[in-house]
Amino acid sequence: MVTQMVLPKSLGERDDDPVFALHRGGKMQIAKTVALQDRVDLSLAYTPGVARVCEAIADDPALIHDYTWIGNTVAVVTDGTAVLGLGDIGPRAAMPVMEGKAVLFKQFGGVDAVPICLDCTDVDELVDTIARLAPSFGGINLEDIAAPRCFEVERRLRERLDIPVFHDDQHGTAVVVLAALSNAVRLIGKEMGDIRVVLCGAGAAGVAVARILLSAGVGDLCVVDRQGLLHRDRADLTQVKLSLAQDTNAADRSGSLGDALKGADVFIGVSGGTVPESAITEMADDAIIFALANPTPEVAPAIAQRHAAVVATGRSDFPNQINNVLAFPGIFRGALDVRARQITEGMKLAAANALAALVRETLSVEYIIPSPLDGRVAPAVADAVSNAARREGVHRR
Amino acid sequence: MVTQMVLPKSLGERDDDPVFALHRGGKMQIAKTVALQDRVDLSLAYTPGVARVCEAIADDPALIHDYTWIGNTVAVVTDGTAVLGLGDIGPRAAMPVMEGKAVLFKQFGGVDAVPICLDCTDVDELVDTIARLAPSFGGINLEDIAAPRCFEVERRLRERLDIPVFHDDQHGTAVVVLAALSNAVRLIGKEMGDIRVVLCGAGAAGVAVARILLSAGVGDLCVVDRQGLLHRDRADLTQVKLSLAQDTNAADRSGSLGDALKGADVFIGVSGGTVPESAITEMADDAIIFALANPTPEVAPAIAQRHAAVVATGRSDFPNQINNVLAFPGIFRGALDVRARQITEGMKLAAANALAALVRETLSVEYIIPSPLDGRVAPAVADAVSNAARREGVHRR
Repeated sequence: MVTQMVLPKSLGERDDDPVFALHRGGKMQIAKTVALQDRVDLSLAYTPGVARVCEAIADDPALIHDYTWIGNTVAVVTDGTAVLGLGDIGPRAAMPVMEGKAVLFKQFGGVDAVPICLDCTDVDELVDTIARLAPSFGGINLEDIAAPRCFEVERRLRERLDIPVFHDDQHGTAVVVLAALSNAVRLIGKEMGDIRVVLCGAGAAGVAVARILLSAGVGDLCVVDRQGLLHRDRADLTQVKLSLAQDTNAADRSGSLGDALKGADVFIGVSGGTVPESAITEMADDAIIFALANPTPEVAPAIAQRHAAVVATGRSDFPNQINNVLAFPGIFRGALDVRARQITEGMKLAAANALAALVRETLSVEYIIPSPLDGRVAPAVADAVSNAARREGVHRR
Repeated sequence: MVTQMVLPKSLGERDDDPVFALHRGGKMQIAKTVALQDRVDLSLAYTPGVARVCEAIADDPALIHDYTWIGNTVAVVTDGTAVLGLGDIGPRAAMPVMEGKAVLFKQFGGVDAVPICLDCTDVDELVDTIARLAPSFGGINLEDIAAPRCFEVERRLRERLDIPVFHDDQHGTAVVVLAALSNAVRLIGKEMGDIRVVLCGAGAAGVAVARILLSAGVGDLCVVDRQGLLHRDRADLTQVKLSLAQDTNAADRSGSLGDALKGADVFIGVSGGTVPESAITEMADDAIIFALANPTPEVAPAIAQRHAAVVATGRSDFPNQINNVLAFPGIFRGALDVRARQITEGMKLAAANALAALVRETLSVEYIIPSPLDGRVAPAVADAVSNAARREGVHRR
C-alpha cells in the first residue's frame, strides 16, 4: 500500500504561476517494473532469489548490464556552478534543471536518468566523487559545470572510467551546431573547407564547438573571448585557450571581434555578449549567423536577418532552434545500446551528420535543423552513434 | 518518441530461471510526472521557465522540497561490503539488492528510492562521498555496509547532514525485533523489565538491537560474539563492543553462549552461527527464540518449537517473519512527510510500538508481528514516526 505525501498548504500563491504549479513535487518519480503482490514475488525480486543474481554478477561483472537497471541509466551530474545563464547558484538550486534534463532523456531517448547535484566544486573532489558513483550508472552526463574546470573533470573521468562520460554543455552544443552549420553551408552553396568562421566565446561550449568544427574540416576558424581574438602571443590565456589559439587563427591575427568579423562567412555566438550591427554589416555576402545566447541572442534575430542569408538562435520562438535536446538523448541511447566504453569524436561527428541528414531533403533558410519535438531525431542519432561505436571498436555488444 | 533498448540474444539459458528472467533489465525505471508534448510544455518544464524555479530555490533553499522530487526521495547507498549473507561482493554485485530495496520503498512507502553503489570502502571516502551527494536526496538509507565501519559512517553523516540518515541493517532490524519481542513478552505474561535476554551477534544488527532493547527497558541483557560473552575485561573488543559490554551484562559474567543461555528468557540470534539443542533446553520456561539468520536460522524452527513458547525467524516460510520491510518504508515515509532533520531514538521506538500495536488484538504464538505484505503497516509506522518527529521538534513542517 502506497501512502501519499502530505502536501503543504502554504505555497498556494506561488503556484498561481504555471511554472511553479508544474514543478510542485518535482517532475519525475521511480516506477517499479516488477510485481510485488505476494510472497512469491518478494522471494524472486528480493530475498532469497536476488542473492543468485548478486552471485552471478560477482562472478561476471558484465552481467550488471543485463540484470540491473544500469544498462539503461545515466547520471546527470552537476556541481551547480554554471546553471543556464544563472551562473554559480549551487547544487540545490540546480536540481530543477537536472530533473528537466532527466525527463528529456526519458521522453526522447527512453533513458533512465538520475539527477545528481554535488556539494563540492574542487576538481579532485568532483572527479573522485563521480568515479565512486560510477558503478551505479551506465553513463555519466556532466551538466552545467563551469569552465575551465569542466575540461579537466571530463578528461580525468574519461581516463578513469569505462563508461561514457559526456559534458553536454560542451559536446551536445557542438554536435547540434555542426549539424546546423553543415546544412547552412550547403544551402548557400559553399564547402566547409572554404568558409571562414568566427566563434565568439571560449568557455565550455565555445571550446567544444571549435574542436568539432576543426574535426569537421572547417578551413579558417578564429575564436574570440572578452579580450579579443585568441592568438599564440596572448599572455592571459589558460592552458585550454592557449591550446585552442595554437590550433586556430592560422594567420595569427590579433584584434577585436569586429576586426575578426570583417569578411567572415560565419558568426557563431556562445558567449552571452552583444554584437553591434556595424560589425555584422562587414561580414561576407550570404553570411551565416548563429546567435545562441539564451534568452538574449548576441545579435537580435531581426538585425541578423537584414545582413545574413541564414540565421539560427537558441530560442524556441524563432526558426532554426539550436537546442542540446537534439543530441544528448540519442547519443546516450546509441551508446547504451551497444554498451560503449566511451563517446568518441567519431560518434559525435556521426550524430551531427545524422541530425543534419534528417532535414537535408527539405532544407530552407528557416529549416536547417529539425525541431526538438521531431520524433525521428533520437532514433536516427542513436543508430548513427551505435554504428560509429561499432566501427571504432568501443562497443561491448 | 522513445526508442527501445536493443535486447541481447545470448543469455536465454540463464533466463529459464524465473529469478533471472524477472531481473532482466532491472526492476525499476524513471517515470516523468509532467507532459512534454509541445513547445509550451518544454518552456514550462525546461528553459526558459525552469530558471525561475532555480532562482526561487537559490533565494530560499527550503523550496527544493516543494519544487523538486527530493522531497520524496531516498538514496539507498552501499559499498557492497556486507551484502545479504554473501559478504564483501563489491558495489556492482550489490546492485540487485539495492534495486530490490528501492522497489520495496516504492511499493510499501510510496518513496522514490535511488540505488547508489559506491566504489570505495574507506570511512573518510564513504562519508565525504555521501555528504557530497546529499543535496540530491531527501534522506539517506545506508545498506549492507560492513561493521564496524558502518557505525562511524552513520555517526559522522548524522552529525554532518540535516536530512535523515538511517543504516537499515542496524535500525530496521532493531525496530522489528523490538516490536516482535514486546508482543512475545506480552503473550507469555511477562514484563520487558523482568526478562533476561541473550543476544547472539555484535555486528551491525546486534549492536542496534542491543541499543533499542536497552532503550525499551529490557532489564537484563547479555551480548555474545564468536569469543563468548561481552564483558568489561575482554581485551579483544572494538570500541563499539567495549561500549556495549559496559552497558550490558550487569553481573559482568564471562563464558560461552551456552553458559549465558542457562535460565535465559529470550534468545535473539543475528549472528549466522548455529546453536546446539542442548543449549536451548537450559533456557527458562516459556522461552522466546528469535533465530534470525537467513537462510539458515541459528536454531532450526522445529527444534526451537520443542523448547520455546514463541519462535520467530527471518524466513517467509515460517510464522512470525522478522523482516526489515516492516520498518524502513514507513519510517522514511513518516520522516519525509514532516521533513525530519534526522531519525531519532524516539522515532524508532514509536515505529516499533506502532508495528506491535497492529497485531496486539489478535496476538498468538504464530502471530506476534504483521506480514510484510500487510498494507496497514507502512501507514501506521509513518504516522507514528511523523508524530514522534513533531514531539521531538526535528520536523520542518
